[in-house]
Amino acid sequence: MKVITISREFGSGGRELGKRLADFLGIPCYDHEIIDMVAERHGFDKNYVAHISEKDIRLFYPSTIAHRFPVNRPAAQQPLQITAAEQAVIKQLAKEGDCVIVGRGADIILNDIKPMNIFVYADKESKLARCRERAPKGENLSDKEILRNMKQIDKERMAYHNLLSETEWGSKESYNLLINTSGKKIKTLIPGIAEYVKLWFEED
Amino acid sequence: MKVITISREFGSGGRELGKRLADFLGIPCYDHEIIDMVAERHGFDKNYVAHISEKDIRLFYPSTIAHRFPVNRPAAQQPLQITAAEQAVIKQLAKEGDCVIVGRGADIILNDIKPMNIFVYADKESKLARCRERAPKGENLSDKEILRNMKQIDKERMAYHNLLSETEWGSKESYNLLINTSGKKIKTLIPGIAEYVKLWFEED
Repeated sequence: MKVITISREFGSGGRELGKRLADFLGIPCYDHEIIDMVAERHGFDKNYVAHISEKDIRLFYPSTIAHRFPVNRPAAQQPLQITAAEQAVIKQLAKEGDCVIVGRGADIILNDIKPMNIFVYADKESKLARCRERAPKGENLSDKEILRNMKQIDKERMAYHNLLSETEWGSKESYNLLINTSGKKIKTLIPGIAEYVKLWFEED
Repeated sequence: MKVITISREFGSGGRELGKRLADFLGIPCYDHEIIDMVAERHGFDKNYVAHISEKDIRLFYPSTIAHRFPVNRPAAQQPLQITAAEQAVIKQLAKEGDCVIVGRGADIILNDIKPMNIFVYADKESKLARCRERAPKGENLSDKEILRNMKQIDKERMAYHNLLSETEWGSKESYNLLINTSGKKIKTLIPGIAEYVKLWFEED
């Protein structure tokens, strides 16, 4: 069973890398699809699931509730339920067959089955350039605004990782391979990554 | 021009990885050879060069001299001369053609020519096992002693790196690819790394 998880800095091209790697290997890639599955299976609103996903869910509770009382009001339970549902979906997908899973703490959630964990990152300039390239038409954020968003999203990803695990998000000890995409076209690199991934699993 | 530098934690198999990668790519690998070259070209004793290499040379000067006076006594100049000679040899080798260079701050010394910088690391158990496998017959160090040596050597490598550069030794921002060799046979992984390296250079 080959399960590859991709953790990534915002703007580093991790999602593109995951998608292209999966295509090259002929296996499915799960990213936003997980949000859709959680929403559909559990009757949540998609946007709400997306809002909760990959964040430290303690943020969604007033500190007095989170610290002093068990959470037991139906509305308050939603973030917990969504996180649990997301984890169940990820485990199910990994059981169904070889796949690539992007983000959502899959590296930690699937720890038992020893996935190959890849971290994708880049320097600030490359991430800015990538964000600009992909910005929807009409979106005119300044560099400062893009960098602020970037920092905020990475902070949320880090908080979610660190909530699930004792290892550090983005620290090399937490991954099997770390790929710096600075100044590189991801498409070009894929056959090399795919070859490495195949050999990495062969060895087990 | 393809120059690949390998930085590595002690016991991670970085040297083996560098040698095998170079063999696979059909290019030379320079590691201890650099010490021999420095010793031969400059008439230093090999063991003395090895002793100085990859360390923070400030350690070889009494702090009063290092901080207050320019070093100008012939004997005191030797560590400085050896470091300078090593850097000149590394630059010369990189000029001569495609190659792999293991350690010795080559990633920083060659910064101008944009080498591909790889960092090789592993978890403690894997590094211990590798050190045990490679120990000379009759050497019976305890795990504690091996770990102490490991820590000391990595500390020296880190100090040498951080003396030459503002980047951090072992921190992902300083490298293009970080390879975790924990529990893996390096030999098996080489064709994947080689493919990735080729594509990485193609892209420029």
